[in-house]
Amino acid sequence: MRILVVNPNTTESMTTAIGEACRAVAAPGTEITAINPAWGPPSIETYVEDYVAAAAMLQTIAGHRDSYDAFVVACAGDPGLYAARQLTDAPVIGIAEAAMHMACLVAHRFSIVTVIDSVRPMLEDMVSVAGMSPRCASIRATSLSVLEIEQDYDHAERVLIEESRRAVEQDGAEAIVLGCAGMGPLDKRLQKELGVPVLDGCGCAVTLAESLHRYGITTSKAGAFAMDAARLPRLGFPVSQQ
Amino acid sequence: MRILVVNPNTTESMTTAIGEACRAVAAPGTEITAINPAWGPPSIETYVEDYVAAAAMLQTIAGHRDSYDAFVVACAGDPGLYAARQLTDAPVIGIAEAAMHMACLVAHRFSIVTVIDSVRPMLEDMVSVAGMSPRCASIRATSLSVLEIEQDYDHAERVLIEESRRAVEQDGAEAIVLGCAGMGPLDKRLQKELGVPVLDGCGCAVTLAESLHRYGITTSKAGAFAMDAARLPRLGFPVSQQ
Amino acid sequence: MRILVVNPNTTESMTTAIGEACRAVAAPGTEITAINPAWGPPSIETYVEDYVAAAAMLQTIAGHRDSYDAFVVACAGDPGLYAARQLTDAPVIGIAEAAMHMACLVAHRFSIVTVIDSVRPMLEDMVSVAGMSPRCASIRATSLSVLEIEQDYDHAERVLIEESRRAVEQDGAEAIVLGCAGMGPLDKRLQKELGVPVLDGCGCAVTLAESLHRYGITTSKAGAFAMDAARLPRLGFPVSQQ
Amino acid sequence: MRILVVNPNTTESMTTAIGEACRAVAAPGTEITAINPAWGPPSIETYVEDYVAAAAMLQTIAGHRDSYDAFVVACAGDPGLYAARQLTDAPVIGIAEAAMHMACLVAHRFSIVTVIDSVRPMLEDMVSVAGMSPRCASIRATSLSVLEIEQDYDHAERVLIEESRRAVEQDGAEAIVLGCAGMGPLDKRLQKELGVPVLDGCGCAVTLAESLHRYGITTSKAGAFAMDAARLPRLGFPVSQQ
Amino acid sequence: MRILVVNPNTTESMTTAIGEACRAVAAPGTEITAINPAWGPPSIETYVEDYVAAAAMLQTIAGHRDSYDAFVVACAGDPGLYAARQLTDAPVIGIAEAAMHMACLVAHRFSIVTVIDSVRPMLEDMVSVAGMSPRCASIRATSLSVLEIEQDYDHAERVLIEESRRAVEQDGAEAIVLGCAGMGPLDKRLQKELGVPVLDGCGCAVTLAESLHRYGITTSKAGAFAMDAARLPRLGFPVSQQ
Amino acid sequence: MRILVVNPNTTESMTTAIGEACRAVAAPGTEITAINPAWGPPSIETYVEDYVAAAAMLQTIAGHRDSYDAFVVACAGDPGLYAARQLTDAPVIGIAEAAMHMACLVAHRFSIVTVIDSVRPMLEDMVSVAGMSPRCASIRATSLSVLEIEQDYDHAERVLIEESRRAVEQDGAEAIVLGCAGMGPLDKRLQKELGVPVLDGCGCAVTLAESLHRYGITTSKAGAFAMDAARLPRLGFPVSQQ
Repeated sequence: MRILVVNPNTTESMTTAIGEACRAVAAPGTEITAINPAWGPPSIETYVEDYVAAAAMLQTIAGHRDSYDAFVVACAGDPGLYAARQLTDAPVIGIAEAAMHMACLVAHRFSIVTVIDSVRPMLEDMVSVAGMSPRCASIRATSLSVLEIEQDYDHAERVLIEESRRAVEQDGAEAIVLGCAGMGPLDKRLQKELGVPVLDGCGCAVTLAESLHRYGITTSKAGAFAMDAARLPRLGFPVSQQ
Repeated sequence: MRILVVNPNTTESMTTAIGEACRAVAAPGTEITAINPAWGPPSIETYVEDYVAAAAMLQTIAGHRDSYDAFVVACAGDPGLYAARQLTDAPVIGIAEAAMHMACLVAHRFSIVTVIDSVRPMLEDMVSVAGMSPRCASIRATSLSVLEIEQDYDHAERVLIEESRRAVEQDGAEAIVLGCAGMGPLDKRLQKELGVPVLDGCGCAVTLAESLHRYGITTSKAGAFAMDAARLPRLGFPVSQQ
Repeated sequence: MRILVVNPNTTESMTTAIGEACRAVAAPGTEITAINPAWGPPSIETYVEDYVAAAAMLQTIAGHRDSYDAFVVACAGDPGLYAARQLTDAPVIGIAEAAMHMACLVAHRFSIVTVIDSVRPMLEDMVSVAGMSPRCASIRATSLSVLEIEQDYDHAERVLIEESRRAVEQDGAEAIVLGCAGMGPLDKRLQKELGVPVLDGCGCAVTLAESLHRYGITTSKAGAFAMDAARLPRLGFPVSQQ
Repeated sequence: MRILVVNPNTTESMTTAIGEACRAVAAPGTEITAINPAWGPPSIETYVEDYVAAAAMLQTIAGHRDSYDAFVVACAGDPGLYAARQLTDAPVIGIAEAAMHMACLVAHRFSIVTVIDSVRPMLEDMVSVAGMSPRCASIRATSLSVLEIEQDYDHAERVLIEESRRAVEQDGAEAIVLGCAGMGPLDKRLQKELGVPVLDGCGCAVTLAESLHRYGITTSKAGAFAMDAARLPRLGFPVSQQ
Repeated sequence: MRILVVNPNTTESMTTAIGEACRAVAAPGTEITAINPAWGPPSIETYVEDYVAAAAMLQTIAGHRDSYDAFVVACAGDPGLYAARQLTDAPVIGIAEAAMHMACLVAHRFSIVTVIDSVRPMLEDMVSVAGMSPRCASIRATSLSVLEIEQDYDHAERVLIEESRRAVEQDGAEAIVLGCAGMGPLDKRLQKELGVPVLDGCGCAVTLAESLHRYGITTSKAGAFAMDAARLPRLGFPVSQQ
Repeated sequence: MRILVVNPNTTESMTTAIGEACRAVAAPGTEITAINPAWGPPSIETYVEDYVAAAAMLQTIAGHRDSYDAFVVACAGDPGLYAARQLTDAPVIGIAEAAMHMACLVAHRFSIVTVIDSVRPMLEDMVSVAGMSPRCASIRATSLSVLEIEQDYDHAERVLIEESRRAVEQDGAEAIVLGCAGMGPLDKRLQKELGVPVLDGCGCAVTLAESLHRYGITTSKAGAFAMDAARLPRLGFPVSQQ
């Protein structure tokens, strides 16, 4: 099967790393393409960036809506996820929901460990709208900005281990959901160190997309995610940006 | 004081009607300017349109961030409201939250009566994130599309009265919140006919903005709505669209 | 317009201060009358006092039910608020709900900072019945009794700043709702010091009453707040107390 | 043991009937005294009456606070219950909470079947503050006013059976809580007809008071129900009414 | 009346102690029989033990289903309680729910103080399914295993006082629910030391069973607790274990 | 990888059908073994059967705890799921949670359509403990008993289509979760007829087990699912049943 992984920000090195993290988990026969929008912010750490990146990502998905068997939205706030589902018949998986649902299979409660504090309100809203609050022990921010992570993985690892330990010891977390797509390459190092499941949403999303594909399930068009194809020409995306 | 009312969709006749509805309620000395983005969808009835319109509206507000005493987001889904608050120190009021908070002062429970069924999941998410679920008796859709309303106000009135009556009689609503900015001109006709408070968010938002201004309250920058001004240049809005 | 502000306790110096706080925010043309019941407790810091004061306040409002355009219940527990709405067609605003709704327009979450610990359970119940729990970060008590505040405003200010800082730093509050009508005169001093919005319910209630009046909204009589006028003679207020 | 049962309204025939219902369930050795306040409304069907009756009831209990082993508040809205607990060291049981807690021992979900529709919002608030919402299937009003019940028990029985059946069949109720102290004499007739447990709060409150007494448990004074006895003289009850 | 108290674990000394605790509270004329299953774990501190003990307890109750006026499930996790209700027409009371409902009559919020940490998730699920979360301030584990308690009551008392104090001072608990049947003999010693109500579920369950019996209430068979007697032969209990 | 699928009831024809449903979805290289306990009820339609079957299933899993890479609990009430997780380091997936989590990826809300009404309270508890209530539109019972399904699949299909349509049209379900392992063979026929995703938990659980295995995630032992291996000999399973 063919999966399009869309990094909603415009930082290409991050897109490349996300693509690699996805391929590392993908089954034989799954083809991963990782791209990012032509416009929008280089990282998503505020509500404004979340909305701008979501619009750019939707324009990107709209341009490939018939060409893939599944789509992955590769940002841990799941920006524009429900909108993306309206654009295509193929399943669209957000990496935050992917990691949270997988965590629920191995832990009574999980915590999300993420980047700087400004993303916390967004993640709280996301967890609430996803109906995941009963299972989420805490959302913990760190000193890391999104783009710092890939500049010094060892530093990021140390910071994430320290904060994850607090989640386990103080909040009752039994598993850690990584709260930024850029943290993916650290998942196994963290898991080994912490001794609890550590879930990167990119890996989770890919295996879930494969599961849905194999079992023959696609996005329901009976409610929230329906959209008449006749609306496509009037969606109002900005011109000549792509 | 000076209030910028932003209609997030691009239908100018609707922008004009919203401006008039706001001026009808504004206090003497309040100056209302109503505008809409240069790009984006002509109306908001799907998640995709909600996100695209929100991004366009944010770009619009960013362009006027220092020039007004308050901003009103004039779409009943409050698209991008929290993001808009990050762009300016002045208060930003969404018309949905404005009408809901005002309704809570005169009714134990309110219902939202809105346009076609596809907006219902969005309004459900909005009510939930706003923490208003305990006070919201129901969200009721009708056969009306956004742009149909202003084409035949008498028809719209009949449809809205019928659905609002169901909300009062079957769901326990004691007040009606109008679920589309385009319904504003009908507020008093509906209120007279129904015998319960009917609230158009545009009017509510203007009086609330005036209240905040008079009492000397602006958006808190201590948490969710903080954003370092240094981020402004990197927000990634699409170029040459405005 | 004419607003009757009822301080539910019998301490006249507090009634005077409340009246002044209200007039300071009122629009030109708004006439504020501040009164208190002839019987009942001198302050409200227990459930018993809350109920006795509420009954006395209701008797007071019943005696003026046709003479004002709006009523304000000036105690931060909103005692007897729903009952007061049954007594008159004019809007009745509680200062707690007023400040909480206004806070929601400028902050994701607010905290209430109040007097001695015995009022906390009452405020918890009030917040819960008002449906405001999702937006309330915490309710924090202090060492101040109601009547101490006006005896030493500088001391009260110091105490309130200390506790408010804890609310902001430890509980995630982005705005402070003052949890006692007697704290009103300190609102702007606290706001300046704390750097987050500080809301006195008296000021909020007055501007909201003006907003409702200007927009033509009165209490819904379709449900919880309906009462047949024929019941008035049999309400059973104590005789010859007023 | 000695139990003081206080009917918060002033209708003496109802007080007598309540006393009889309590004695019918009381254990040998339990002495029941049933009284009502000297002032206040003849029945409680509005928020205003609820508050006035609560204040009068509190004055009544304050006058007997040291003379009984337990107190029962005999109105199905539990008016002023928490305040009453502050006035005495002896347990104070509300008949609504009593019936609800007993119902939880024999049914997954209960419904409250009550008098006219105006009491419904009050009962909703009461159930919510009591934390009983997860177990309450519905609150169903009827055409019966409080004082009509004792005038024609056969009529009341027919009305209550009809509404209770709807609660069982449509709402999933497995037990019925009687929503007015005046319905007590019908409990066994209704239970026989309906085939599900029917609980009158008066009977439940008496057996629970006996249980607490036998087991040696009294009201906690560690939080919500504490009140310094020094406050008693300043509670502000109306004079010369008792 | 005759009450069968079933200790779901197989430790006979504990069964004896539970029987004595029940008899100490029982009214004259109440006959208590305390038994335990012939198979299953010696104590319940894990989910696995909870399920095995529940099955063994159900087999025990099935063997006595027509011979008692009420049944008590004497383990503070209420294992298999709903299932037990399906086996008999007589009331079945769990000691956890019994203590929680009684606590609600004398305290705004209670905490459960229990044995080792591994039982906490089970108790959380139990509180949630019982709909008691709104009233439960916290669940606090200690260093005590179930079987250690009766080996050194003085040590257990010290540990429980220390943890209960934290519940009162840090979590806002106003009453303590003992989270293990083996703690029953310490209830009055703890209550005297702590100064707040301390509730052993065994005592509570016995008085509640007596209350239901006296008032003529049995388990509802209209919903969750119904079971056709024809199913009894096919329930699949293990043979020749009893 | 090797997956042990345990049907908790003792009906072998159902075990065979479940094994086939699992193999139909399994990836190449996944080896499925389907078994059932030696004792316990032939189907699970009451709380009693749920507990007895859970205990028998736990004994079964304990006997194979080191021999498989993952376990599946193949009953739509997820009986004993958390206990099963304590018995082994390998992941244990319940078919109810599996189908619910997968449904959340393609639908805003799902409904569970199940067998006879007596299982509804159990499924309600299960959904609540799983934290899935915010996403579950309804649980709908039918006239089908568990063992009837495989006796006439065409009849079962007609019944399930009728009830599922009500869930979609009246409750807002966008996907259907099959509420009995015996319904698995009908998943694709129902999905084709209904036009919305239809999820059999067996298929979902197998693909999720494969996903966890591929991504290297096992059950967290940091909290609810920890159990010291030293407890194994004292779990108290009935002897000589297996």
